[in-house]
Amino acid sequence: MSNNKVRVGILGATGMVGQRFVQMLEHHPGFEVTALAASDRSQGKPYAEACTWRLVGDMPAFARAMIVQPPQPPLDCDVVVSSLPSDVARASEEAFARAGYPVISNASSLRMDQDVPLLIPEINSQHLDVLERQKQERGYTTGYVVTNPNCSTIIMALALAPLHAKFGIEAVIATTLQAVSGAGYPGVPSLDVVDNVIPFIGGEEPKMESETRKILGSLGRNSFENAPFAVSAQCHRVNVADGHLVAVRVKLAKRATIEQVREALASYRSVPQELNLHTAPKNPVLVRSEDDRPQPRLDRDAGGGMSVTVGRLFPDSVFDYRFVVLGHNTVRGAAGAAILNAELLQARGLLTANSGPETAAAGKARVR
Amino acid sequence: MSNNKVRVGILGATGMVGQRFVQMLEHHPGFEVTALAASDRSQGKPYAEACTWRLVGDMPAFARAMIVQPPQPPLDCDVVVSSLPSDVARASEEAFARAGYPVISNASSLRMDQDVPLLIPEINSQHLDVLERQKQERGYTTGYVVTNPNCSTIIMALALAPLHAKFGIEAVIATTLQAVSGAGYPGVPSLDVVDNVIPFIGGEEPKMESETRKILGSLGRNSFENAPFAVSAQCHRVNVADGHLVAVRVKLAKRATIEQVREALASYRSVPQELNLHTAPKNPVLVRSEDDRPQPRLDRDAGGGMSVTVGRLFPDSVFDYRFVVLGHNTVRGAAGAAILNAELLQARGLLTANSGPETAAAGKARVR
Amino acid sequence: MSNNKVRVGILGATGMVGQRFVQMLEHHPGFEVTALAASDRSQGKPYAEACTWRLVGDMPAFARAMIVQPPQPPLDCDVVVSSLPSDVARASEEAFARAGYPVISNASSLRMDQDVPLLIPEINSQHLDVLERQKQERGYTTGYVVTNPNCSTIIMALALAPLHAKFGIEAVIATTLQAVSGAGYPGVPSLDVVDNVIPFIGGEEPKMESETRKILGSLGRNSFENAPFAVSAQCHRVNVADGHLVAVRVKLAKRATIEQVREALASYRSVPQELNLHTAPKNPVLVRSEDDRPQPRLDRDAGGGMSVTVGRLFPDSVFDYRFVVLGHNTVRGAAGAAILNAELLQARGLLTANSGPETAAAGKARVR
Amino acid sequence: MSNNKVRVGILGATGMVGQRFVQMLEHHPGFEVTALAASDRSQGKPYAEACTWRLVGDMPAFARAMIVQPPQPPLDCDVVVSSLPSDVARASEEAFARAGYPVISNASSLRMDQDVPLLIPEINSQHLDVLERQKQERGYTTGYVVTNPNCSTIIMALALAPLHAKFGIEAVIATTLQAVSGAGYPGVPSLDVVDNVIPFIGGEEPKMESETRKILGSLGRNSFENAPFAVSAQCHRVNVADGHLVAVRVKLAKRATIEQVREALASYRSVPQELNLHTAPKNPVLVRSEDDRPQPRLDRDAGGGMSVTVGRLFPDSVFDYRFVVLGHNTVRGAAGAAILNAELLQARGLLTANSGPETAAAGKARVR
Repeated sequence: MSNNKVRVGILGATGMVGQRFVQMLEHHPGFEVTALAASDRSQGKPYAEACTWRLVGDMPAFARAMIVQPPQPPLDCDVVVSSLPSDVARASEEAFARAGYPVISNASSLRMDQDVPLLIPEINSQHLDVLERQKQERGYTTGYVVTNPNCSTIIMALALAPLHAKFGIEAVIATTLQAVSGAGYPGVPSLDVVDNVIPFIGGEEPKMESETRKILGSLGRNSFENAPFAVSAQCHRVNVADGHLVAVRVKLAKRATIEQVREALASYRSVPQELNLHTAPKNPVLVRSEDDRPQPRLDRDAGGGMSVTVGRLFPDSVFDYRFVVLGHNTVRGAAGAAILNAELLQARGLLTANSGPETAAAGKARVR
Repeated sequence: MSNNKVRVGILGATGMVGQRFVQMLEHHPGFEVTALAASDRSQGKPYAEACTWRLVGDMPAFARAMIVQPPQPPLDCDVVVSSLPSDVARASEEAFARAGYPVISNASSLRMDQDVPLLIPEINSQHLDVLERQKQERGYTTGYVVTNPNCSTIIMALALAPLHAKFGIEAVIATTLQAVSGAGYPGVPSLDVVDNVIPFIGGEEPKMESETRKILGSLGRNSFENAPFAVSAQCHRVNVADGHLVAVRVKLAKRATIEQVREALASYRSVPQELNLHTAPKNPVLVRSEDDRPQPRLDRDAGGGMSVTVGRLFPDSVFDYRFVVLGHNTVRGAAGAAILNAELLQARGLLTANSGPETAAAGKARVR
Repeated sequence: MSNNKVRVGILGATGMVGQRFVQMLEHHPGFEVTALAASDRSQGKPYAEACTWRLVGDMPAFARAMIVQPPQPPLDCDVVVSSLPSDVARASEEAFARAGYPVISNASSLRMDQDVPLLIPEINSQHLDVLERQKQERGYTTGYVVTNPNCSTIIMALALAPLHAKFGIEAVIATTLQAVSGAGYPGVPSLDVVDNVIPFIGGEEPKMESETRKILGSLGRNSFENAPFAVSAQCHRVNVADGHLVAVRVKLAKRATIEQVREALASYRSVPQELNLHTAPKNPVLVRSEDDRPQPRLDRDAGGGMSVTVGRLFPDSVFDYRFVVLGHNTVRGAAGAAILNAELLQARGLLTANSGPETAAAGKARVR
Repeated sequence: MSNNKVRVGILGATGMVGQRFVQMLEHHPGFEVTALAASDRSQGKPYAEACTWRLVGDMPAFARAMIVQPPQPPLDCDVVVSSLPSDVARASEEAFARAGYPVISNASSLRMDQDVPLLIPEINSQHLDVLERQKQERGYTTGYVVTNPNCSTIIMALALAPLHAKFGIEAVIATTLQAVSGAGYPGVPSLDVVDNVIPFIGGEEPKMESETRKILGSLGRNSFENAPFAVSAQCHRVNVADGHLVAVRVKLAKRATIEQVREALASYRSVPQELNLHTAPKNPVLVRSEDDRPQPRLDRDAGGGMSVTVGRLFPDSVFDYRFVVLGHNTVRGAAGAAILNAELLQARGLLTANSGPETAAAGKARVR
């Protein structure tokens, strides 16, 4: 393996998002996976044995013989990415940060902490400034924690961000149709979705309502200031494998024509595109004009799964505009989100092959 | 057959809703089916041959040998119920009304005409007063046309009606997840819904936005006055056989506690319940408090398919309240709606075994 | 409650089959449910709280307040029906039989024991003769165990039985397409069946291959003699809620025309029909001639879920005949199978309101 | 465009298989698409307008402005590939062959003709020798017709071929679970597959039974000799978008251990692999040993959709062995099959940039 890649440990490596991490990092030019950890009874086994691979294609060969370790430091890596279940994520992730590891987390435990960035690189890279305060307050040395939002929230926020930047948002009403992979594996029982819809996803509605406002808010001196608009979310599970669709109504502060709205979405480019980050899509937001798009099966893989697709953009009879936005929930909404965060941190010099703790550096020397 | 039943002709008898008419009228105490008509190439054949029965259970024996006729008068019946495709419905239904037949229509063609009632017996039975004007203006003698709303609209309107009556509605935002049977047969191609959602149903959004306001509005001297609130609708097709779910946010004119809202829904009883109409559900609106109900597969058949079920009733962060409401789209949303309309008309003396034209009366005499 | 009903305890009452037991016994003329037991952490709670009801319609009112008990004697009942998970079924069911309770089991643990009847009332009621030997060998007094076969096996066996009786069977090749409810709840993860088929159901193929031969075999002096033909089974899980379909090829010992085969199936009547048992379908086997039937959604509820439906009966190019047979896996294939067994036992005098142990009789006296 | 690519016309370009042709030929090193034709009302329109693109990803840019033409010669191309509906395929394809065009057809019309090769390059490339006789008998000059089998048949035949070659096959019993894309678009109505299985696919069973024997048979002097074994096929449509699964039992002429069978399948390589044809998979047959593979969603894209995957290989209790085999029905089973046929013809010198008729050559000169 090349000597200048950042060495990554994956926490929660056997789950659905963990498998996406393994898949997306297999041929990554800047990262290499050097450690796999999981919270379950798979510890101590080779990954090939511990993990039933559930993604299309075969388990990457590099990972097959790696031994699954407990999600506790030390791990032989410079940084950890985490998709641990929320009940164990906080303790594990804080332990890694304290031990000197940058932690890039997809878990929900720390997202709303007032010294933790809830990062979408296109939207709020300036929130990374909070890391200084985080380190001071928590006594971290080289370690820190950066989180990405909930899957539905990311997908919706990417469509709201350009509108909020240009026209100001005053209110958002969102109704989701979410894929079953969002609940992991085994996740949603098939009896719940065959010929059926479940109008409930535990914790999802409050997450969308609170996280959206933090993401689109600003970083104050001692805390984050929420964006000054209310969000209403109703969430539904539907019989789809991958791809969350969000039906959105938005009320704007400034008057905007539908062409201005469409243009704001379609022309949206931001930091990851300017920095040409490896996982960044060319277009964060694609806009389609067909009557019946976006559709999960046809559009979830747009931009390698990292673009979201907006369609059915119309004036609304109650609010100003309505549209639907769709994205790949385990790529843009989870593993890809965390990887893009890591790439931004690397581009900003906050993540290097020497980022991790002494022990990691030692391990690195030992390995090479 | 008994001598005092109203003799019914079904227009569009071979379609999905037409089959529901046949099924629901098989053992009806007040109606008997005496004629079947369809607009397609099935004319002239026995129903058993013309129609591929797609409902659970077998085709009712009484209908098997009946010859499918063209949807044009005369038909040997006292009244026609219609689920004709919208492109042929207007001409056919007006022809029947002119020929003296009461027409109870599920088609969309005439719904928004200013002299046609868009009837949900629980909500706006007083709209039947327009029939006098309809007959005068159109020169009908014994004939007239009564319509029922679009399937999603009926289901939502049943939950809105008690709220509008008690608290006044100021705005409604509705997002639907609709079953494939709503598109008839062959209807939605399976490739469109396997692992997928279609964010488009032709004509559905405008129907929900306009019909709701007519239903909940009042009957003026020369036209209907729409209810004074805007409705926004986004409609989606999901991989469900039967049962439309509508996610609703509602803004109220008067302050109401959540308990008052729940009570208004759960205690709702109206004309069909008071008249004890055969097809009327005991509770037009059921309210469930489980986290994950209503669900199409479990709740669509509540009240024999004639109740709608409300769940997930909560204060909303943008509007006042939110909830989801689910109903059976081809029963309460179509065939059952029309049959309940017919029962109301019968109870009001507007529909009798002698309602139809001379020819029908003649046919009746002949038969008996 | 009436005084002469047999009082039934349900083991495994919170599972999918347990819920079917509760549902099917609610209005049963000969049985009443007096005890509910489950192996899980629901013990000690009222059924309404312990059990998330997953069948269409509401949980029967009678059961809501009943306290869920451990699946160990004593229980306040005359007989137990069991749908316990196979890992706990043997110990629990044997304990009940030893304690004097007749045990009517849907579990797989004891099915192949050489002193236990694997009963389908239409096919092998004479196998009940083994109960004498069972009691002697096991030292049971009033207690005994009767089992019903695996769901797919029952459905197929009902179509094979009349052919074996009339023409003799020499070989059977069966390929199944099975519903997800067969795995209980949570059971099959939705990610496994959305846009997918799973060509594996743990233990199912050996069960079909061995149980079929026991069912259609004869009862010898000290053991059962298998029917003298081989069965090959390949089993698949498909995206269907309820209803197992089995594609069958059969090689016959005697020559038979297709009309003779059809007639043997369609005219099949047996002991439950003759005894007019409450749950017995009028026709155990329905034969349809449409090109595209049977279908799970349309045909699973035939005969109240207790009939199986055969279709696509044709001469086969390798074996003699082929057909598909479909049945409701949790009704005819599980709860209904056990209830029909209980009804047969009652009709034979092997099950009465006094069948159970002393303690049960005492409980009965106490209750009434 | 490069000057030495073979110029391809696609007949049936707007259908599901036609779209796969467009997609698979977009970056093909040896072919370029120069004409699009369809039998429907899309003629005369640009492809972007005539065709609703239903594959993942966008319609290839090169095709968007191409005008859809009638499926009649002349077309500006050297060769035509055809996925015309079977009712129009024979007349159109024969017209092209008579006019001098090589025709590579996926349609069923000509497959069983005794002078037409039913070609799977791995299996029966020697059947191309019949083309001499075909041209003589039909009076074709530069034109000819080569067909590929039905989708399910190709997938099964690839697993049977190595077994027949090594051990001899005596009988095959096949039961299919087929994806809805096999019926094209709109194809299967969603009401037929939601919570359902359809045990019927028009014409499929006879195709599998007859085509398999032609493919694995030999080419005699005046006709094909069928392989000397019977095939029994039962076909089912399941709720899967892409990927046909076939459950197979096979009786062998020679004794073979399961290891020999596995090895024969896994080591199978043939003409396309030796010639290194562009679309040829490295392994025509992949063998998996997990309990629950192959699965349509996970395995249909193996080898770029051109490999089939065998799993659940076991000794059978009635025949010798059983297994399931899965392949992508619109890639390996249709468009990819025809393209691989074209590549073989090109490698054999039977298809060149000058293959077509004079008019085509003229067109070519004109274009370049």
